[in-house]
Amino acid sequence: MSEIGAVLETYRDAVHAKDVDRFVSIFADDVRVFDMWGTWSHDGIDSWRDMAEGWFGSLGDELVRVEFDDVQTIAGDGVAVLSAFVTFAGLSADGDELRSLNNRLTWGLRKIDGAWKVVHEHTSAPVEMATGKVNLKR
Amino acid sequence: MSEIGAVLETYRDAVHAKDVDRFVSIFADDVRVFDMWGTWSHDGIDSWRDMAEGWFGSLGDELVRVEFDDVQTIAGDGVAVLSAFVTFAGLSADGDELRSLNNRLTWGLRKIDGAWKVVHEHTSAPVEMATGKVNLKR
Repeated sequence: MSEIGAVLETYRDAVHAKDVDRFVSIFADDVRVFDMWGTWSHDGIDSWRDMAEGWFGSLGDELVRVEFDDVQTIAGDGVAVLSAFVTFAGLSADGDELRSLNNRLTWGLRKIDGAWKVVHEHTSAPVEMATGKVNLKR
Repeated sequence: MSEIGAVLETYRDAVHAKDVDRFVSIFADDVRVFDMWGTWSHDGIDSWRDMAEGWFGSLGDELVRVEFDDVQTIAGDGVAVLSAFVTFAGLSADGDELRSLNNRLTWGLRKIDGAWKVVHEHTSAPVEMATGKVNLKR
């Protein structure tokens, strides 16, 4: 697996484990996140950690399975760009799928002290022009 | 102005001039666009050119003024990432502002034959969780 592929795996595993520390470990301290939900921008790791704590804390005994599709990566020496489609599936404690939704994900990454860190994340789903409503199923 | 700043200027000027050729000139042939409106992905410059033709063709004698705020750029040797907030203002033929909306913009760029080209664009605005509706004013 590529080094950047390993960052995707850490994201997926950290979400499944609801492990806030592991989740934030892949992001740079000065990360700027354009998240699909609620706010225009999270600036810095503290705001993004708060988001993760809120998300994981809201799940009760449910789990989230993350899958990436059509991953495209453009990597230079110290800067890389990744885009992909993501499926977030909510699972019961027994592993039954309760619901799922799709996202588009963009990462900007920088190599910091030899490790790729996400310095910019952008997630969204397309909006229907007539209604202004987001479409959560690809 | 930086080389990447010049790409923003070309985008802005091409939209104001409704110049499809100039607009597509800043994008790579194999560009992947996660646009805010309608579709999950535009893959390749032909699909993206169709979008521009439809957009500019729909404007009648109105013009669009583009402004970028809080531009952040991370540039390596041959790969760069840019994020910014964008204001699109619709102007009458006399220059009066009729309406405006905000976007979040991410670009992944690659240096191709000595010139920066946008290989990935992602635009969106945040979605209110309770309603599923997009918020177009920052």
